[in-house]
Amino acid sequence: MKKIVTGAAGFIGSTMVDRLLLEGHKVVGIDNFSSGQKRFLEKAFQNSNFEFYNQDLLDTEGLNKSFLGGDVVFHFSANADVRFGTNHPRRDLEQNTIATHNVLEAMRINSIKKIIFSSTGSVYGEAPIIPTLETCAFPIQTSLYGASKTACEGLISAHCEGFQFQSWIFRFVSILGERYTHGHVFDFYQKLKLDPTRLAVLGNGLQRKSYLYVQDCVDAISIAVEKSLERVNIFNLGVDNYCEVNDSIGWICDELGVKPKLEYTGGERGWVGDNPFIFLETKKIRALGWAPKLSIRDGVIQTVRFLKENEWVFEERASL
Amino acid sequence: MKKIVTGAAGFIGSTMVDRLLLEGHKVVGIDNFSSGQKRFLEKAFQNSNFEFYNQDLLDTEGLNKSFLGGDVVFHFSANADVRFGTNHPRRDLEQNTIATHNVLEAMRINSIKKIIFSSTGSVYGEAPIIPTLETCAFPIQTSLYGASKTACEGLISAHCEGFQFQSWIFRFVSILGERYTHGHVFDFYQKLKLDPTRLAVLGNGLQRKSYLYVQDCVDAISIAVEKSLERVNIFNLGVDNYCEVNDSIGWICDELGVKPKLEYTGGERGWVGDNPFIFLETKKIRALGWAPKLSIRDGVIQTVRFLKENEWVFEERASL
Repeated sequence: MKKIVTGAAGFIGSTMVDRLLLEGHKVVGIDNFSSGQKRFLEKAFQNSNFEFYNQDLLDTEGLNKSFLGGDVVFHFSANADVRFGTNHPRRDLEQNTIATHNVLEAMRINSIKKIIFSSTGSVYGEAPIIPTLETCAFPIQTSLYGASKTACEGLISAHCEGFQFQSWIFRFVSILGERYTHGHVFDFYQKLKLDPTRLAVLGNGLQRKSYLYVQDCVDAISIAVEKSLERVNIFNLGVDNYCEVNDSIGWICDELGVKPKLEYTGGERGWVGDNPFIFLETKKIRALGWAPKLSIRDGVIQTVRFLKENEWVFEERASL
Repeated sequence: MKKIVTGAAGFIGSTMVDRLLLEGHKVVGIDNFSSGQKRFLEKAFQNSNFEFYNQDLLDTEGLNKSFLGGDVVFHFSANADVRFGTNHPRRDLEQNTIATHNVLEAMRINSIKKIIFSSTGSVYGEAPIIPTLETCAFPIQTSLYGASKTACEGLISAHCEGFQFQSWIFRFVSILGERYTHGHVFDFYQKLKLDPTRLAVLGNGLQRKSYLYVQDCVDAISIAVEKSLERVNIFNLGVDNYCEVNDSIGWICDELGVKPKLEYTGGERGWVGDNPFIFLETKKIRALGWAPKLSIRDGVIQTVRFLKENEWVFEERASL
């Protein structure tokens, strides 16, 4: 039986592909390279257990074929561009909600019943209680991204009820580490490369954020899928502390050996719909024996080192 | 300025159209008659303040044009077929989620900022706490219908945050009354018309249900829109008690003067994904001074009388 990974050339997807191959599984990777990178799959392509389809999730016919023989789907493909959601309101709907519907249909057609899904802490909107539990009060969505991931979660759990699927839904904080290609460390690194003497910072720099290292994220997913066997298994994933954007800027600048003048745009939000503070209660996943190995600081530094050694990711992003 | 009503030829939509016209507003009705009935708009068509577009919400170009000059949208168009959701998994996605996205886009293009939305108590899935509050724990979806309405709510509130919309979202129990064209009273009436000596009942008849009379529903919407002025206003709508399906069968049979033999299919659910008990806490809307005028029993009887006087609705449904 094969493990299917959508978004296989993406940050978390390609990390999961490598992990599954390391564990000896047959893996089918699916990606359309809209934001994924061929280079992230270099190692996978050398493994005879790896099969790949250059496939758009909106092309249902091709999708249905590529799922043949799978027994579980790691659905990690997504539009993860939270910030510019209001510039193209249809993108989250298509690439998240409709794509997830298509994935579930392809599963149904191929009698695949298990799905692992990368959701987000953004589904909590502006949570009134922090750290936020999986069972917090019914949230009000504040971003098109969060709304689309909530829609995906709903589709998945309705399939669990209606078609006897089983699901593991992970609500992530932001993820950092090797193969990271968007987010604040990426943006700051890119700006500092162009001009190390100054750095424009959206908001007031006091926005509190919680980050998780990508290998810790993949560890948590593996443990939850092994140990949690409800029909619908929902887990927050994150570390048990947070930093301010200013802390992160300090670590990045230290690692790069630069001392830019910080220029704040002001306000407590980086952008419209930005959540000034996402911090998740993770005692549910910790109760299964998982704990993150890297602190936020170490995750940020690891990410800067990856970017230093892989500056080609900036070229690739610029060409999109 | 005009009030726009989608699903204008539907059960609740046409009732809202008549109410708005009665209040002297200019009203634009939009419907594609996929399940709406021209006859429900007979009175409206005689009013010079009423304008109508035979328009599918999936045709964005036509939709955008029909919204010209509106100042508020009552978005009541939906696929409301909860029961057969698993027979056509794409229908709720298209007619609810994508259609609502299109409505929001048409609003944005036409600078309309206010939306009233008919959601459902089904968004609570199988609520662990009953009666269920608007702020209950983050629910797990159990039906494609509930999942699609949750997706719509998310899209709407994300537009409130991202585009300064204002919204009133109503989570209904089942609605009864004049122009009711689907649901258990409809089904039982239809079966008893064919054969008054026996009645097949899905489940064990002990399913508890809460119903609200359509005029009480429209009253509540009018009051909430007038008095509740948050950016996102979410209200449960229902009566403060419930009945069993068996109670309802008794009232229907009494009204029809029949004594059928009841044949239960058994089990505590009528169908896969059926929620054996939806009962909503409505103290939030009651705090605005609203109270329903009709009991569940009176609502059921009113509905049976409407069906008796309008048996053509069964012909129309049969031809769909």
